[in-house]
Amino acid sequence: MILPKSNRLSTAQVDELNAIVGEFGCRLQPIIGAVRTIYAILGDERDELMINRIEGLDYVERVDRIQSPFKLMDRRSDLASHQVKIGGVTLGEELLMIAGQCTIDPKNPNFFYETAEAVKEAGAQVLRGGVWKPRTNPYTFQGDTKSLDILMEASRRTGLPVDAEVMDEEHLHMALDAGVHMLQIGARNALNYSLLRAIGKAIAERDTVVLLKRSIHMGPINEFIAAAEYIVSFGNPNVLLCPRGTSPGLDGYRNHPDESITPLLKEKSWAPVVVDPSHSVGRAAYVPSCALAAVAYGADGLCIEAHAEPSKGIGDDPKQALTPAVLKTTLEQAKQIWALRRGTPVAALS
Amino acid sequence: MILPKSNRLSTAQVDELNAIVGEFGCRLQPIIGAVRTIYAILGDERDELMINRIEGLDYVERVDRIQSPFKLMDRRSDLASHQVKIGGVTLGEELLMIAGQCTIDPKNPNFFYETAEAVKEAGAQVLRGGVWKPRTNPYTFQGDTKSLDILMEASRRTGLPVDAEVMDEEHLHMALDAGVHMLQIGARNALNYSLLRAIGKAIAERDTVVLLKRSIHMGPINEFIAAAEYIVSFGNPNVLLCPRGTSPGLDGYRNHPDESITPLLKEKSWAPVVVDPSHSVGRAAYVPSCALAAVAYGADGLCIEAHAEPSKGIGDDPKQALTPAVLKTTLEQAKQIWALRRGTPVAALS
Amino acid sequence: MILPKSNRLSTAQVDELNAIVGEFGCRLQPIIGAVRTIYAILGDERDELMINRIEGLDYVERVDRIQSPFKLMDRRSDLASHQVKIGGVTLGEELLMIAGQCTIDPKNPNFFYETAEAVKEAGAQVLRGGVWKPRTNPYTFQGDTKSLDILMEASRRTGLPVDAEVMDEEHLHMALDAGVHMLQIGARNALNYSLLRAIGKAIAERDTVVLLKRSIHMGPINEFIAAAEYIVSFGNPNVLLCPRGTSPGLDGYRNHPDESITPLLKEKSWAPVVVDPSHSVGRAAYVPSCALAAVAYGADGLCIEAHAEPSKGIGDDPKQALTPAVLKTTLEQAKQIWALRRGTPVAALS
Amino acid sequence: MILPKSNRLSTAQVDELNAIVGEFGCRLQPIIGAVRTIYAILGDERDELMINRIEGLDYVERVDRIQSPFKLMDRRSDLASHQVKIGGVTLGEELLMIAGQCTIDPKNPNFFYETAEAVKEAGAQVLRGGVWKPRTNPYTFQGDTKSLDILMEASRRTGLPVDAEVMDEEHLHMALDAGVHMLQIGARNALNYSLLRAIGKAIAERDTVVLLKRSIHMGPINEFIAAAEYIVSFGNPNVLLCPRGTSPGLDGYRNHPDESITPLLKEKSWAPVVVDPSHSVGRAAYVPSCALAAVAYGADGLCIEAHAEPSKGIGDDPKQALTPAVLKTTLEQAKQIWALRRGTPVAALS
Repeated sequence: MILPKSNRLSTAQVDELNAIVGEFGCRLQPIIGAVRTIYAILGDERDELMINRIEGLDYVERVDRIQSPFKLMDRRSDLASHQVKIGGVTLGEELLMIAGQCTIDPKNPNFFYETAEAVKEAGAQVLRGGVWKPRTNPYTFQGDTKSLDILMEASRRTGLPVDAEVMDEEHLHMALDAGVHMLQIGARNALNYSLLRAIGKAIAERDTVVLLKRSIHMGPINEFIAAAEYIVSFGNPNVLLCPRGTSPGLDGYRNHPDESITPLLKEKSWAPVVVDPSHSVGRAAYVPSCALAAVAYGADGLCIEAHAEPSKGIGDDPKQALTPAVLKTTLEQAKQIWALRRGTPVAALS
Repeated sequence: MILPKSNRLSTAQVDELNAIVGEFGCRLQPIIGAVRTIYAILGDERDELMINRIEGLDYVERVDRIQSPFKLMDRRSDLASHQVKIGGVTLGEELLMIAGQCTIDPKNPNFFYETAEAVKEAGAQVLRGGVWKPRTNPYTFQGDTKSLDILMEASRRTGLPVDAEVMDEEHLHMALDAGVHMLQIGARNALNYSLLRAIGKAIAERDTVVLLKRSIHMGPINEFIAAAEYIVSFGNPNVLLCPRGTSPGLDGYRNHPDESITPLLKEKSWAPVVVDPSHSVGRAAYVPSCALAAVAYGADGLCIEAHAEPSKGIGDDPKQALTPAVLKTTLEQAKQIWALRRGTPVAALS
Repeated sequence: MILPKSNRLSTAQVDELNAIVGEFGCRLQPIIGAVRTIYAILGDERDELMINRIEGLDYVERVDRIQSPFKLMDRRSDLASHQVKIGGVTLGEELLMIAGQCTIDPKNPNFFYETAEAVKEAGAQVLRGGVWKPRTNPYTFQGDTKSLDILMEASRRTGLPVDAEVMDEEHLHMALDAGVHMLQIGARNALNYSLLRAIGKAIAERDTVVLLKRSIHMGPINEFIAAAEYIVSFGNPNVLLCPRGTSPGLDGYRNHPDESITPLLKEKSWAPVVVDPSHSVGRAAYVPSCALAAVAYGADGLCIEAHAEPSKGIGDDPKQALTPAVLKTTLEQAKQIWALRRGTPVAALS
Repeated sequence: MILPKSNRLSTAQVDELNAIVGEFGCRLQPIIGAVRTIYAILGDERDELMINRIEGLDYVERVDRIQSPFKLMDRRSDLASHQVKIGGVTLGEELLMIAGQCTIDPKNPNFFYETAEAVKEAGAQVLRGGVWKPRTNPYTFQGDTKSLDILMEASRRTGLPVDAEVMDEEHLHMALDAGVHMLQIGARNALNYSLLRAIGKAIAERDTVVLLKRSIHMGPINEFIAAAEYIVSFGNPNVLLCPRGTSPGLDGYRNHPDESITPLLKEKSWAPVVVDPSHSVGRAAYVPSCALAAVAYGADGLCIEAHAEPSKGIGDDPKQALTPAVLKTTLEQAKQIWALRRGTPVAALS
């Protein structure tokens, strides 16, 4: 929909608009209002270049886009019937619970083994463990490849599939070679399209699942879903959308919790939504409330940081990780709220 | 805490700082670090003028404030044991549910009477009804004083206390004269200190309750609580803090839902928190999820828009108001989540 | 423009839409795209109730509004040829410079008289002086009515018209009775529609000018301009739009400077734009840069805090106020940049 | 600085704090106030793990950090005397002007050659040309490696050094092999620490310059400067900080212009600041104002999109690129404002 700056365009201006949309296989339809005439673009308006050409004209106020920039991720796509499965859970049919450490301590593997057992005992179906970590401060510990062995050993001991963040192609291939089941893309790389494409290609023929964190800024929903389209366009549709709080933060939290975006994501895309309350709020005492709120909003899963002994952890764990006992209570209550919502007519709650 | 721009201040600079804080009855204590020396302010640092004087010095980077700008609203104040009561509910002991119309239609009072019955039937303990309405567009219906009679008649019919927004002193006195039980201060007037003071004075010797909406911008928590202090400082401590979403909105909602601020408010203040999910999300379909999430975050109450027949409503009601059936389901589920949280050790959920 | 959730609506749904817009004297025109049909609203779509009714339908994704909610403030209104004049300046023909103290100290009137002389000497054409002040902390000095006499005395001494903030109707009438030439509405009251209306009524038959600060939140431009419409609708069109920074602030400033909104305001409205750099950045050292940037963006005027001796000031002055010497340099440079822009072809700079 | 939740800590709590900071070679100093005792951390507090450990304690409200997380980029570092040079310009002594196309059209190289000549003629000292482009929509043109040859040919023809964005290691090595003089890191990769490290390593022994865009979210200044530290820590200090607007955008612009951050960056870091007005505002008509405002704020350089014939451009060029004539006027005016600022006492303008 083209909104000109003036109420009526000249013939020459309309001709110019017609010529531009014509180049892209579209045509114009004027909407003649009492005061103002605007122009609908009929055809596939998704080419950004066409939009940029029109918005570059000095008599155009703005172009309102009607179509979404993604095809496969759209709720109306053929892919919408796809069900993502991991750890014995079919997303949508049961609450997916991912839990584990922000950062594995390569010098003290036993902490992670204990955490893994606690995570399983609390009812989580996927084990999270950070091998490499993005850090604001370049001189802080950034993770260690040795932790990959510890992660896979914990997977063997517990039987749980594992989730690890990859920050570049080198990590990606090491993680896949080791057998990591779920690849996590962090908030800082959420719009790193080279990495998204590399992951899409690498897992095209595998059943690996990707947990795509939302970018750290309060960007538009379409941008978030379009990032998932980068991965899925290579053929593997196992992607989970993960809100994790945006910046600037709510005064007192690490970020501004954004689990409330869940119903909006579900209206636009079929992809399951798995919320990370740990990064949203950034302190263990606040995490359970945020986790329960996410389920109240209709999240299909949770991704929570936990540690056998948080104060002995490294990375964000001393601050954010739940103890095994609190994790267990939280997951149990989350399941109760999930059940409460499921028993409710859709009209009331979505 | 004073952070200078340079690592060490000169003697003359320290003397100047000492002189300033001395004027306000405080004194300095240097904290001599290996690299940098900073200065603590000992005494009552709450006078904004002292802070402004120090921050006005060109060798000062910033002043970090340690004390809160409010006394009575502080969690550690003597007022902290005060319990707000309305409609038979003691806040904190039972979930307070306020529901009703954004705007009463003065030409069709029966809609409001039906809404009032439905609100009571759904279990709400307070009836909300908008008499006067702030509107962005000056040419839109702004409310009608005749609606005040309709509001009070509905109160008589149902036996429920009523909540109405007041936008200026004239409204305030009309509402009090009519017997309105709860005065609502809207988001656009949340920092209108003249109005806050006028309300504080007018209700000083009454048992009226004030529902103070949070300002529409994502301002600091202290600013929100300090606004309540304006009212309470006149003697009536019956104030409820009401998060209702902030601007800019989450893409697709009217505002950015901020029920997540609840635990942060409770850490700083004893005041009960009553969340308004209707303005947070701005569309009826999303309201139940937001309401449940608010309770998951520990809200003491909810303030929800409902209408006997939303499509016949005026103001925001056609868009935001729940039908009686959805309201009832939502309030029932809200109570279940409230009970779930109450049964939980504090350590896990607050 | 109505965007349904599904690609095609049913006949019953279209009938319902037609019935709603018909009630408001509008009609629908379908825009039949290859994939999706959307609906233009022909007629006056400005009634919020019609929009709310449509957005309340569960098959409607959103309504994109084409028309602005203001009539008189619109750039295409007949009022667009109106020129605001004050202090011998015709806005648009010469840079308007307002300067003075945030807060007049009622105990030390001589500071304000000295400031007034310095402001005149620096070339400013209007003198600002705060009589009453909104403060976050209820226990901080909030201004004193005695300062009104000091303000008017300074006006007599310098021959400059004066600008003072009014926070309620009582202030308004005192200020008008005293002869204040420019009424300032602060950021916290920018959406206090009762006050806007009261001011509009009170000055309807006077030549008083209103300086309307932008709300503290990053709200939509239309909301800002519509607030001015409240005042102007009573008959006095002398309104100046004043960006003053929004919240959340840029890390290190008091607010997020928003002088960049100037070209956007000018595209929508004929109203002159007068930027307040003092509140935008909040510290004297940053104010000159912000003032010059505002003029680079095309501002018609500046409103700057200055003080004969900032460290002796009260309110924000010790932190924000420029010294007379810096004020003078800043205003001279501002005039140079203003001249540079004026000599430039419009195509390049607006 | 550690702020406990209660006014006084128990002995056991203080012992625990002492033990933690002791592990990191620091010690505590209590600041005993009349009401509350807080604790300064003496020593190097930059280890995030220590801060996380302390913030993880349930009796700690927050830790205020005194030290910055970067060493080399700090204004007080030995590197502060380093001067970045490119295209014959020593940053700080002359305004650096980078201009050129967002995207080179590999099918129509002549446009870029014409643009290159126009850029040189307008007075710019560095030529920008986009070879690879990050795009929200995965199905939009993402750039073409053939454009690298066109870029280098334009460099040979004009004698100007060239600037190109690299999105991954493959691009990085191709660009360096081809002889690109300035590497640009885009806003979406601004926190892609793997890429930052790879660039730092690759250019450690070269004189390549890096133009680091600010992340698209309004993140803290320290995060931005710390990202530069990643690159510089490998040995090449030629980094330029580039604000380019943040999200959410100002209503009507692509982003929220943030040239106002310039004085804040300069207070913390010695690094030159080069502002990109094209992405800040996103439409050609607004770019000149934003460019001039950036210089008014003290920017050391500008990076502007221009095109010989914008409407024939691809990528963002039809919308954002200036024509050669407007570019020339803008750069001339920018130089005038730069000169105006330089002639001003520092006290007035920084």
